[in-house]
Amino acid sequence: MAGKPVIGVLGPGEGAREEDQKTAFTVGRLIAKEGWILLTGGRNKGVMHFASKGARTEGGITLGILPGGNKEEISEFVDIPVVTGMGSARNNINVLSSEAVVGIGIGLGTASEIALALKAGKPAILLNQSGSAARFFQMIGQKGPWIVKSTEEAIALIKAHLKG
Amino acid sequence: MAGKPVIGVLGPGEGAREEDQKTAFTVGRLIAKEGWILLTGGRNKGVMHFASKGARTEGGITLGILPGGNKEEISEFVDIPVVTGMGSARNNINVLSSEAVVGIGIGLGTASEIALALKAGKPAILLNQSGSAARFFQMIGQKGPWIVKSTEEAIALIKAHLKG
Amino acid sequence: MAGKPVIGVLGPGEGAREEDQKTAFTVGRLIAKEGWILLTGGRNKGVMHFASKGARTEGGITLGILPGGNKEEISEFVDIPVVTGMGSARNNINVLSSEAVVGIGIGLGTASEIALALKAGKPAILLNQSGSAARFFQMIGQKGPWIVKSTEEAIALIKAHLKG
Amino acid sequence: MAGKPVIGVLGPGEGAREEDQKTAFTVGRLIAKEGWILLTGGRNKGVMHFASKGARTEGGITLGILPGGNKEEISEFVDIPVVTGMGSARNNINVLSSEAVVGIGIGLGTASEIALALKAGKPAILLNQSGSAARFFQMIGQKGPWIVKSTEEAIALIKAHLKG
Repeated sequence: MAGKPVIGVLGPGEGAREEDQKTAFTVGRLIAKEGWILLTGGRNKGVMHFASKGARTEGGITLGILPGGNKEEISEFVDIPVVTGMGSARNNINVLSSEAVVGIGIGLGTASEIALALKAGKPAILLNQSGSAARFFQMIGQKGPWIVKSTEEAIALIKAHLKG
Repeated sequence: MAGKPVIGVLGPGEGAREEDQKTAFTVGRLIAKEGWILLTGGRNKGVMHFASKGARTEGGITLGILPGGNKEEISEFVDIPVVTGMGSARNNINVLSSEAVVGIGIGLGTASEIALALKAGKPAILLNQSGSAARFFQMIGQKGPWIVKSTEEAIALIKAHLKG
Repeated sequence: MAGKPVIGVLGPGEGAREEDQKTAFTVGRLIAKEGWILLTGGRNKGVMHFASKGARTEGGITLGILPGGNKEEISEFVDIPVVTGMGSARNNINVLSSEAVVGIGIGLGTASEIALALKAGKPAILLNQSGSAARFFQMIGQKGPWIVKSTEEAIALIKAHLKG
Repeated sequence: MAGKPVIGVLGPGEGAREEDQKTAFTVGRLIAKEGWILLTGGRNKGVMHFASKGARTEGGITLGILPGGNKEEISEFVDIPVVTGMGSARNNINVLSSEAVVGIGIGLGTASEIALALKAGKPAILLNQSGSAARFFQMIGQKGPWIVKSTEEAIALIKAHLKG
């Protein structure tokens, strides 16, 4: 398992739309298929839950960085839980630990993570985004994010980035 | 000094526009005039620096929550430095410690803070914002932020909030 | 207030002995008398509470670095609350933000803070310590801590350190 | 891999004695043999490095919680890096993420972790400890730690704890 890249999938928990959950499942599955490790916020809700579920169906490894001080809210599809006890301050760990991040849907937590990812110089890819989110992040981020329309495009961009 | 409310002023460091620095100075001054404690990110650059400078001219108290592990980058106008050694994860401390936050100008760090503030249920007021920032945060934040055009409006909104 | 040194007073909350609370009150008072800012863990219990109370009686400034995500547990004698929402991870902020720390009594949280202080190269002074605590920290810390028997000695050591 | 327990191995980095490195290697190997996930502080030095190396020789999974903001200091035997950028504040994540922790040797960082582990109610097992460390932690920790003399005893205690 050594040296496998970690790819973060970020998105709303409770407020995730059905469309975002489906996309998250597919992205999780594709990440596992590539042999990459999936990182999420670890909870049993929304984008993080469905991305982990997708990765599990392909036998991938799922890492979950939990905001709480215990594993109460953990998704059953997380293999490796990291318990931070730091609330939303853990969002910065999510992005620092990822080679690249994929944002699916948007919420306040996700917006903070996309901003922190770009600040840390991490490639950020947005899927299922509204025009106003795309315009906002393109305005403030000097190098991105990439706005894509399909999960295949997202995977292709990560692959290109990892090849350097 | 006991019981004085803490008000956060957030905005770009290195990339701050001159207009944002002037606004930050005025907002810092007005916060001090109200007898409130000013919280900033503590560094000697941009919005945080000028807000602290403004508060100092009125004899106000300035609290700086530094990202680094020492005081190398501290603004000379910060009275009370808190050294976190946590990098951008300290952004969440900035918002949790403030009764309300004022965002002046926008950058990646500021965007993460506005998002975290709204997530934590803190009143957030945006000054000197582009239309796309305003539209983005109004779309994702259920309760705000408030978009205002003058420093007086910002102070009036905080005052109303503190009265409850 | 600018440039006043921040001195941390660390010790048990719930489990503090009456003797430790009295000592904390005196140390808080002496810190305020010197014109230094008092830093504590901010809660309304034990050493942190009584140190803040002592500083208040001399009109000193008290900074409280709270572990929780809100101000529920704050001591009424804290002037400037910093809300971290990070639980015990905030212990590292306590020591990084202090020019020197005084440990009064010992408990698990305090032990972690004394260890982190010495690791960060901060002068650490222990008051009211058992022999086994003293021996342990002297064994693992290359430069300290200082074990003292009176509050006056503690203040004298800090004064000497601040003079450099 | 789902549901495998995470066991933390904590100890000095730079200052680790050769004896501690050997013990760490054996404990890492035994943890992997049990099918448990090994958690360490992730760096390429001392106890964390040798524990990860030991686990790798048995094909185990190694999780490394790094203090820095990037992977510069990572041990080549860490499979899954978590980049916190929080310095020693990440020590609390180490203990919250572990079902039980094993301290091998002692230093300032390790002392803070053992104290935080006991505070969080985690079983802590000490190997290769001096008498003064043992006495100190037994004095301040109401439930532990366990002081053992062999790696087999350490594993047996963890096994008993996991069976609940």
